[in-house]
Amino acid sequence: MKTLHDAFEHTLHDVYYAENAIAKALPKVIGEVENPGLRTALQDHLKETKGQIKVLDAVFKSIKKSPKGEKCDAIEGLIKECEGVMKDAKGPVAKHAMIVGCCQAIEHYEIARYGTLREWAKALDYTQAHEMLSGILDQEKAANHKLTHLAVTTVNSGAKA
Amino acid sequence: MKTLHDAFEHTLHDVYYAENAIAKALPKVIGEVENPGLRTALQDHLKETKGQIKVLDAVFKSIKKSPKGEKCDAIEGLIKECEGVMKDAKGPVAKHAMIVGCCQAIEHYEIARYGTLREWAKALDYTQAHEMLSGILDQEKAANHKLTHLAVTTVNSGAKA
Repeated sequence: MKTLHDAFEHTLHDVYYAENAIAKALPKVIGEVENPGLRTALQDHLKETKGQIKVLDAVFKSIKKSPKGEKCDAIEGLIKECEGVMKDAKGPVAKHAMIVGCCQAIEHYEIARYGTLREWAKALDYTQAHEMLSGILDQEKAANHKLTHLAVTTVNSGAKA
Repeated sequence: MKTLHDAFEHTLHDVYYAENAIAKALPKVIGEVENPGLRTALQDHLKETKGQIKVLDAVFKSIKKSPKGEKCDAIEGLIKECEGVMKDAKGPVAKHAMIVGCCQAIEHYEIARYGTLREWAKALDYTQAHEMLSGILDQEKAANHKLTHLAVTTVNSGAKA
């Protein structure tokens, strides 16, 4: 890894691995959720994640590379934390609050990575990649806002007792 | 972990561990950075991190608990990713770009955690904790904006070649 292009390609492999890991982990998380609003939000995000993997396929194609994931220690840690929380939380109150928190940590990881990637794409004049990555970034920010809204309007207030 | 208070205390242990891990890891990262603006930003953030650990001590005190860290898989993964990047990047161009990216991923993790914690503090009527955690959240957001500014104004444009 020497050039900005190398960094771009490396990090693209990293988020490709991350999105696939999230698509694999989310059904288990959804299975633990009883709160209907949170359940729907996570189901929607699972569909969105599968769509984002297809957009990433197109980003790879736009720079004439084959889609490939590379083990990403960060997402492994974030998912491990989420799994630990689901095991440790006894009862819906703490479990729902902790699940929203962990999912927002994962959303923020994606926001950071797509923010970086789309700026690198811009600096490298990869116009198509810049547009596609900006589109995914907007979806991740919207998903995070939806979780914040759910947290402050239902999950946290219901969990106060 | 049953109540929202339990979730709050657990996550407070998690960020206490994370801030201490960051304070330990940052000097090694700073040692790899030649870009003067980035070096100064990371040195400033190291000082800020040490200050935040003291604020967290006060947050623990405000809920009548002793400060304690608990192994946080997420920050372990994020730091491992950063260390891997520093090993794999050959030369300043990719290295500086990747270091900014990894540091922003860490900032975003903190933004997610303090965003969650301060909303839980509000829901639990922990007024003092809410104020202190909101103060740290503002610092993390400012640190992240500073890194974005450095990336788009110097690091990425210098790395294009």
